[in-house]
Amino acid sequence: MDIKRSIRHKLGTVATELYLGDDLLGSALLQKLLLERKCVIVADVALKNLYAAELAAKLGAKLLTVPSGELAKRLETATHLIDQLLQMGVDKETTVIALGGGVTIDLVGFVASICLRGLPLILIPTTLLAMVDAAVGGKTAIDTAFGKNLIGTLYDPEAIVIDVSFLKTLPEKEWMNGLGEILKMGLIYDPSILALAEKNPKDQALVVRAVEGKIAIVEQDPKERGLRRILNFGHTIGHALETVSQYEIAHGEAVAIGSLAESYLSMRLGYLSKEEFDQIEKLYKRLPLQLPRLYAQEKLLDAFRYDKKNINGQVRVVLIDRIGHAMEFDGNYCLAVSQERLKETLDWLEKVYL
Amino acid sequence: MDIKRSIRHKLGTVATELYLGDDLLGSALLQKLLLERKCVIVADVALKNLYAAELAAKLGAKLLTVPSGELAKRLETATHLIDQLLQMGVDKETTVIALGGGVTIDLVGFVASICLRGLPLILIPTTLLAMVDAAVGGKTAIDTAFGKNLIGTLYDPEAIVIDVSFLKTLPEKEWMNGLGEILKMGLIYDPSILALAEKNPKDQALVVRAVEGKIAIVEQDPKERGLRRILNFGHTIGHALETVSQYEIAHGEAVAIGSLAESYLSMRLGYLSKEEFDQIEKLYKRLPLQLPRLYAQEKLLDAFRYDKKNINGQVRVVLIDRIGHAMEFDGNYCLAVSQERLKETLDWLEKVYL
Repeated sequence: MDIKRSIRHKLGTVATELYLGDDLLGSALLQKLLLERKCVIVADVALKNLYAAELAAKLGAKLLTVPSGELAKRLETATHLIDQLLQMGVDKETTVIALGGGVTIDLVGFVASICLRGLPLILIPTTLLAMVDAAVGGKTAIDTAFGKNLIGTLYDPEAIVIDVSFLKTLPEKEWMNGLGEILKMGLIYDPSILALAEKNPKDQALVVRAVEGKIAIVEQDPKERGLRRILNFGHTIGHALETVSQYEIAHGEAVAIGSLAESYLSMRLGYLSKEEFDQIEKLYKRLPLQLPRLYAQEKLLDAFRYDKKNINGQVRVVLIDRIGHAMEFDGNYCLAVSQERLKETLDWLEKVYL
Repeated sequence: MDIKRSIRHKLGTVATELYLGDDLLGSALLQKLLLERKCVIVADVALKNLYAAELAAKLGAKLLTVPSGELAKRLETATHLIDQLLQMGVDKETTVIALGGGVTIDLVGFVASICLRGLPLILIPTTLLAMVDAAVGGKTAIDTAFGKNLIGTLYDPEAIVIDVSFLKTLPEKEWMNGLGEILKMGLIYDPSILALAEKNPKDQALVVRAVEGKIAIVEQDPKERGLRRILNFGHTIGHALETVSQYEIAHGEAVAIGSLAESYLSMRLGYLSKEEFDQIEKLYKRLPLQLPRLYAQEKLLDAFRYDKKNINGQVRVVLIDRIGHAMEFDGNYCLAVSQERLKETLDWLEKVYL
């Protein structure tokens, strides 16, 4: 696989260059892109001796690290990182290279977007989830005590480098994590994804299709005024699961459970056929999913209150009417759903997984 | 005075509506604009019983307050405010109304720009300085231990309400503070400002010209890639004075001293004539300016290191070649200046004010 695609987000004035391929970090193209810049690499600390130190040495760049895990995605960590960047004397022409999984991409992207009112940014995702989700679409994010991603910016990186050779050493659990977002893309947009995943859930073509799907959606609605909302399928319940688990559950796993539950809800509300739901359920039941230890229905219902899609306190959910198609409701891409139906969906979910 | 102007920043997709006039907050127009929205007012705590509680009651809006003074412009205050907003259940359609001086405008604007990745924002500046500076141009800002405004975003408000009736109760010191930025606009862009100010420094026409000047500059370069830099005239030395004074000195006062010093530097480098500099010096010497108690030349030279205009560690300064005209250097609007010349300028400044 050796693909190079150039995309231009309509979000701002920055054109984002997307590089997608195998062994990209060793390629002459990338070396050139990166060597031309004054860079600081900010990597997940777990990657320090794995890839980060080597890359920093190759580029003659400084290296900073951030802690691993969702709990690192806090304002305190962001503040500390900004202090370190200012301390080392970054200026507005210093490119920040984020190297790591979704947490690192979200956190470092946020810091780059607010430090000196915006530093040039290059994203190098190292997990499957980050390749298909966090790295694409220009969103940065920080969690708060009230929920996930409640703080953030829309900020385009100058380049995204998706090097699938990182996947060779990806732990089994991380495949499942990425698959949650990939299958979601199958449910809302590209039905061929489900068929591919049924045959071989590690097919590299899944990465390409998920990334292409996300780009196609984001390009139509970079600021999430409408269509882009469909990317939130599975996320109303997914984010709430993450919040109540105190981020013990992985994002992709939470989205996988959320996607199954919101498919159930789509059927329960009369939009999705029983046949298609059964097909979805069959695929998801093959995955090693489980509810978090701290799961409690009332805590989940409470967590819905802080969902970013809510308007006037009403919980709104993205729904599908067939595999590969999210629904539009009068210009909106989510629908207010009653507490009763949400509760019923959780009751069903508990029967499956508790 | 009853002016309504509509401006559209090219920064993003939001069109900013500018209302400039007398007794606007009592006008039917404004009432309509604000009553149509679900609002939260975030006001400087010093205004709580002066205007804020009354406005909140009139609009049926919730009221939050932030501390007064530059020290409030910290990430800790921002974090606390975000927690309060989330706690009260804001959603992406809740408009945040910032009511106060420059500190409140910068801080609340920053919070609105990152909370839920951006809430609709309306700015109501209550000081002369905030009317001509912080409220116009789409910049938000937070200070760090390394210097002023080192964290921030570019984020357009939906409306700016400049109600000059606030100026009736403006303390004398605050006139001086606003005049610092107004006179700067005269030096870099609109020579008629200096002539007006010489006659009557409280002429309301000064507000209009300063705001119009800033809009004209920002519209040509919203993202500060070039021309907009000229707004930083007086700010290299001004910001450094603020930093070393630990924000004891007011921003406009620091900019006034900085503008005079950078006019001296412009002359010293051979760009500004002795005659025009003498005219500037004469006007500035009539103002009640003084260096901060904590002034020390070596601390100031050190503070220059964190200026946002720096590239590769070189301090860069905006210069003027005549009253009303900032200079362009080969596409750039600031020039690298040696430590020697900076030191010489500070030596001169100390002779005038110490």
